[in-house]
Amino acid sequence: MFIRNAWYAGAWGHELGTGNMLSRKLLGESVLFFRKSDGTVTALRDRCSHRFAPLSIGRREGDCVRCMYHGLVFDAQGKCIEEPGRKGVSQNTDVRHYPTVERYKLVWIWMGDPARADPDLIPDCHFQDDPAWASDPRYIHYDADYRLILDNLLDFSHLTFVHENTLGGSKKIAEIRPKIEQTPEGVKMTRWYLNEPCVAPYLDGFATFDGPVDRWHVYSLSTLGNVFVMDSGSAPAGTGAPEGHRVPEAMQFVATQIATPEDETHTHFFWTYAHNFRIEDAEFTRMLGDRILAGFLEDKFFIEKQQEMIKEGGAEGMAFILADNGLALGRRLIEQEIAKETASAES
Amino acid sequence: MFIRNAWYAGAWGHELGTGNMLSRKLLGESVLFFRKSDGTVTALRDRCSHRFAPLSIGRREGDCVRCMYHGLVFDAQGKCIEEPGRKGVSQNTDVRHYPTVERYKLVWIWMGDPARADPDLIPDCHFQDDPAWASDPRYIHYDADYRLILDNLLDFSHLTFVHENTLGGSKKIAEIRPKIEQTPEGVKMTRWYLNEPCVAPYLDGFATFDGPVDRWHVYSLSTLGNVFVMDSGSAPAGTGAPEGHRVPEAMQFVATQIATPEDETHTHFFWTYAHNFRIEDAEFTRMLGDRILAGFLEDKFFIEKQQEMIKEGGAEGMAFILADNGLALGRRLIEQEIAKETASAES
Amino acid sequence: MFIRNAWYAGAWGHELGTGNMLSRKLLGESVLFFRKSDGTVTALRDRCSHRFAPLSIGRREGDCVRCMYHGLVFDAQGKCIEEPGRKGVSQNTDVRHYPTVERYKLVWIWMGDPARADPDLIPDCHFQDDPAWASDPRYIHYDADYRLILDNLLDFSHLTFVHENTLGGSKKIAEIRPKIEQTPEGVKMTRWYLNEPCVAPYLDGFATFDGPVDRWHVYSLSTLGNVFVMDSGSAPAGTGAPEGHRVPEAMQFVATQIATPEDETHTHFFWTYAHNFRIEDAEFTRMLGDRILAGFLEDKFFIEKQQEMIKEGGAEGMAFILADNGLALGRRLIEQEIAKETASAES
Repeated sequence: MFIRNAWYAGAWGHELGTGNMLSRKLLGESVLFFRKSDGTVTALRDRCSHRFAPLSIGRREGDCVRCMYHGLVFDAQGKCIEEPGRKGVSQNTDVRHYPTVERYKLVWIWMGDPARADPDLIPDCHFQDDPAWASDPRYIHYDADYRLILDNLLDFSHLTFVHENTLGGSKKIAEIRPKIEQTPEGVKMTRWYLNEPCVAPYLDGFATFDGPVDRWHVYSLSTLGNVFVMDSGSAPAGTGAPEGHRVPEAMQFVATQIATPEDETHTHFFWTYAHNFRIEDAEFTRMLGDRILAGFLEDKFFIEKQQEMIKEGGAEGMAFILADNGLALGRRLIEQEIAKETASAES
Repeated sequence: MFIRNAWYAGAWGHELGTGNMLSRKLLGESVLFFRKSDGTVTALRDRCSHRFAPLSIGRREGDCVRCMYHGLVFDAQGKCIEEPGRKGVSQNTDVRHYPTVERYKLVWIWMGDPARADPDLIPDCHFQDDPAWASDPRYIHYDADYRLILDNLLDFSHLTFVHENTLGGSKKIAEIRPKIEQTPEGVKMTRWYLNEPCVAPYLDGFATFDGPVDRWHVYSLSTLGNVFVMDSGSAPAGTGAPEGHRVPEAMQFVATQIATPEDETHTHFFWTYAHNFRIEDAEFTRMLGDRILAGFLEDKFFIEKQQEMIKEGGAEGMAFILADNGLALGRRLIEQEIAKETASAES
Repeated sequence: MFIRNAWYAGAWGHELGTGNMLSRKLLGESVLFFRKSDGTVTALRDRCSHRFAPLSIGRREGDCVRCMYHGLVFDAQGKCIEEPGRKGVSQNTDVRHYPTVERYKLVWIWMGDPARADPDLIPDCHFQDDPAWASDPRYIHYDADYRLILDNLLDFSHLTFVHENTLGGSKKIAEIRPKIEQTPEGVKMTRWYLNEPCVAPYLDGFATFDGPVDRWHVYSLSTLGNVFVMDSGSAPAGTGAPEGHRVPEAMQFVATQIATPEDETHTHFFWTYAHNFRIEDAEFTRMLGDRILAGFLEDKFFIEKQQEMIKEGGAEGMAFILADNGLALGRRLIEQEIAKETASAES
């Protein structure tokens, strides 16, 4: 089950050139994306209304797409405008059109009730294209339920163990209880690790200071769209980072991580790791991204193994530990939203 | 669900040599074919009655087959005639025997009530071995429901699009409504495209005339066995082809296409494309077959994609367009026949 | 369905070194085996109690294992002894511990009620480590229901056919009815083939005598654990083998074959083929094992094909023949035991 009335990241804008078509399964439905001549993106159900051939193996004709099985043509709104061999078209031949908005380098898609698709609801991911920040858009495919990915992000105690030699590097991460807040959008969690002996392994060679460090992770999950934005950083210890002061040596990052369900057990994971220093240095941006990727692949390994165990024996009976307050809140908010949608659909 | 009381093409005769055994799943059941010393073919359930080892991994012993697990021997009628370690045989040890007839280069098999297996019901495919015609026997395996293949054959509007550069080559095919008739066997459809500028691409270099052409497709589906026979051809325009006159330059073909279900979502496709000119020219027959194959692989690509979409979201909700009269009739006749068999089985 | 209250062979002792962890699915559950510092073996559910990550991708810490997802530590009894970030541990965080005993080179595991795990119930497989006998421990993985393997072992008539050129080599095996007895543990079957012209093919070059031979197979199945022990041999004909006399040229073997279910349709097969002559000759032991393996792979081929046929059309309707008394008894005893466990679980 998925929340449907939400903006989901469906594709990176750069995946859509001027002539190509992209087919991607989202929430169990194959969706066709393409960019129109005016530069905007459109999204249709990637399935001809007639005999269900995918439109993505059809042909772009201007801002329309022709199903190359029997030749029906659909405009960018999914309206069937040509049926070979007759004037006009038969009934019920339109294909579903999904509202889309391109923003923050991403194509956002609304899979629920189109009337509710208010662009103002798109979560703020402006760090992805804010000129004061630099990042590379990245993608990982998961053979796992998206909720296992959210669980992972909502319990940073795993950094100590899964990411011992990459993103973690400190026992304190697992020892310190975060501050957890429910927000209008979802969950906010705040952790500070003060006076740690050194920076995390993934920052080796990047730091311009030696000695003890104050580290922080402040992250927010928007349960609509599964968008996770994390403010994190490392500053020389005792230079006022917790109070908001940033000395020039401080390294600050904003990570954006978005888990869009492909189906019940597969997930599209879009992410960036923006930095506001050395922003002109594309090689640095790439190296930083690669180091973060190494850490994220550690997550992927664990999460996909979890999924295998759930396939073996179900998901019932997981023990609840102290570190689970964040993920439990996230799970509860998602369940409530799905229940609300289900109730609304039934009434 | 399949019609069971019908002659299905189970194998090409040439697949059965003097000593080999052929195992092929038909209508969900593994069937063993072999050729007896008198040259006729027999078909048994490819499953020992005892512990269900396939007989096809057993041993031919004359016109019998020995299960090489525990040594039971079955004659060509499936009767168990030897059980090692005892005189006579135990009860219920016979395996199912299916009526077969070898005709038109094919081995036909009757998977339903043997009492109804009248060879006169075998659809006429005589063009496959009529000495006035030449063709190569061909086979394609489909990862798709056989009904999707019939749909394809019953809506030739797809020639314009799927086969734009092979079998089609004319917009008229999609534009002209065929004449559709229900026949005692199933469906007959007739289409003429007069005064087209040139022959279809697959005939490039084969035609002995230039200039405009009259083309036709007259095809008949027998829903018992899913046998499709198509009279098609191309003649110089205005030379009387529609009235039945064939000038020497006219090229006439009879295609036979048979979709035998392997199971619910896989199909055996047996076909020939017979021509009645250059019939001594084996190289021409082969080249013609290869060009037709190129077109049929285009169908396969679309049809298997359709199957994937149906797997994703079911087959409900396909829109009905004007071109669908033929396929809708075919579907209805098959459903009626299955319903009749089901009712008869229950009463 | 499996008998749970039984000792199953879970691993060869040599699979567990001093530092490694072995994950193996048994009766549908992934189990983690490792050897403690005192040399004994322990077995835990290979699934963290918290978020179900496999412990086998965690870390050995002395005799404990740390889940490397969120850092929980479990002792060798499965007790959670550390939860990062708090004193003590949360409730319900222990993982299941299974009783194990290492004996006869095997690690035996009890998947049922631990209170009933009496080591005296372990079937006698002492030939595997008796210094008067030599054998190599071997393993085969089957894509088949374990009961199909037991069926195979309980009907030696298949030796004549499946193993015509390896373990069999005599028509008599299929012709002679064995003596079948129900024992407290399961089933015992006895067969003698007297005055056969020569030894079985797998003994070619191993026999130190020529001419006729008395052969025997006396085998016992313990249905608890699916342990099959077979006394077999070949002696010069007429030298008193049936009466228990063994001349020096007689070759005697004790095979141990154990079918531990992985899940409903996959099986772990542990086996040895012990001989009490040339026991210092490791090369002979290896060659003998390889020849037996060739025969066992013939079984595997047939049994996995049976499984495929059962997948195609179910297991109902197998005919019962005279040779089936042994396997029918084995099946019945297993079914009775499962029914007893089910009834006991429900009451």
